[in-house]
Amino acid sequence: MERRFESYRRKIEASLKAALPNDTSGISRVMRYSVLGAGKRLRPMLFIAAYESLGGLISRAVLRIACAIEFIHSFSLIQDDLPAMDNDDYRRGRLTAHKAFKEDIALLASDALLNEAYRITLENGGIEEKLRVKTALELTRAVNRLLEGQEKDLSLSRLKPRTLSELDKIYLNKTAALITCCLRIAGILRGVSDSRLNCLSSFGQRLGLAFQIQDDILNVTGDKRALRGKRFSDQRWGKITYVSIAGIKKSKGIVTRLIKEAKKDLEKIKNLDKGRLLGFCEVILRRTY
Amino acid sequence: MERRFESYRRKIEASLKAALPNDTSGISRVMRYSVLGAGKRLRPMLFIAAYESLGGLISRAVLRIACAIEFIHSFSLIQDDLPAMDNDDYRRGRLTAHKAFKEDIALLASDALLNEAYRITLENGGIEEKLRVKTALELTRAVNRLLEGQEKDLSLSRLKPRTLSELDKIYLNKTAALITCCLRIAGILRGVSDSRLNCLSSFGQRLGLAFQIQDDILNVTGDKRALRGKRFSDQRWGKITYVSIAGIKKSKGIVTRLIKEAKKDLEKIKNLDKGRLLGFCEVILRRTY
Repeated sequence: MERRFESYRRKIEASLKAALPNDTSGISRVMRYSVLGAGKRLRPMLFIAAYESLGGLISRAVLRIACAIEFIHSFSLIQDDLPAMDNDDYRRGRLTAHKAFKEDIALLASDALLNEAYRITLENGGIEEKLRVKTALELTRAVNRLLEGQEKDLSLSRLKPRTLSELDKIYLNKTAALITCCLRIAGILRGVSDSRLNCLSSFGQRLGLAFQIQDDILNVTGDKRALRGKRFSDQRWGKITYVSIAGIKKSKGIVTRLIKEAKKDLEKIKNLDKGRLLGFCEVILRRTY
Repeated sequence: MERRFESYRRKIEASLKAALPNDTSGISRVMRYSVLGAGKRLRPMLFIAAYESLGGLISRAVLRIACAIEFIHSFSLIQDDLPAMDNDDYRRGRLTAHKAFKEDIALLASDALLNEAYRITLENGGIEEKLRVKTALELTRAVNRLLEGQEKDLSLSRLKPRTLSELDKIYLNKTAALITCCLRIAGILRGVSDSRLNCLSSFGQRLGLAFQIQDDILNVTGDKRALRGKRFSDQRWGKITYVSIAGIKKSKGIVTRLIKEAKKDLEKIKNLDKGRLLGFCEVILRRTY
């Protein structure tokens, strides 16, 4: 399983390099810096894993969609780090885009990544137009939820609420929406029924929520070197997290429960070769950074 | 002619109100504030004028595309005004989005406008999928050029160049690209040939350039009340403009020449009812704010 994911990752890295603009303009440089940094590529890997699990064959056209997903993720990270947002100087052990360059060009590069995500999805001859439209629309919905989640997150840091269900709402938008989108797009491209799409969505929501809670846990307990300066960053900013509300033990229990339920969702999906997605659940559960 | 444009404007305003999200979330409020402010609606009007001139009938589906164009324009204005960019407190006589609200939410609203532009273009049942893809792709290209233009503009404010041709490159990206896009989309939706599309592009580039130079002129000579605090704003920031390089008289001459050449472009386009677009040229020439 590990080897399979490693092969996904290599394909994605190569496709990202090819999909990014290669000119010398300032914006392109910042786009390359931000995307080709040190991402885990979880979202595009999940998309490809789901696509293969539904009987699809990885092609250049499919890898372009994987790149579009990662572009959107990078867009959101650049903006989250901006002074007006979380004001972070480091991300994945390197300077954030606005610190390595300037704030204005970091912002333009983030816009360009969002925009390019749509361009490469729509300018994708290997996929019929109807499916390109559906895929791009799924992306627009995920981005909308991402923005809503970010807004709620910002307003919550001011209001300091104390319930897990309020946090769930943010995590479902900020993290789980794009993860769910990866699974839905895989389903759409494979032409699955609406009921199978709904099961994929449910799996994605649970997996996404588990992933974000795991993030909260790792922020406190995680491998310091692997996290490269990330550890404790949430506490430094006094951010409300699952851990700060429920404690580590309870949070871990919730992650385990969510992953268990997510695995059950997979059982409901007909003609799905579950192995890869079950492996993905283990990756989420066992990750140390 | 005036009355026709007034009727366009009314239709566009009504469509914008309907197309904007109506919920109480912070982002939606900022989107409505920014879009429903006091825009001239030149770009969507130009799109509709071109579409009708090519024999098209205005429909709800076409007005949705007009809204997408205006959303993209609003996205760029919000971001141009941000502290990291031009740092403007006022726009169209009102507080800029980040001043009326907060910087973080203004940024999220600008993203949401760009994203919604793609969503309403692609989720547009009244237009066949193939044309939706082409239309959205034209928008992605215009946005790319807009971002490039903004980047060049920012780097030039630091380097202070002195040639009009350097300024032309910026204006062609920052202003003319979206104006050209309005004309090209009208052509694409009407299924015109590539050679007619090229003529429309050429017309759009000249019109867009003339519009931006006129903007530079009005910044110095314009009707102060109508410009609502905008007059002299470029000079206050020491920005290089057509007027600062070539003076008012020469700049006016260039506008007149560009509009004359733009009108000639129209003559080359077969089956075009030129009246509306000629009227548009006059609007650009005679505008006082």
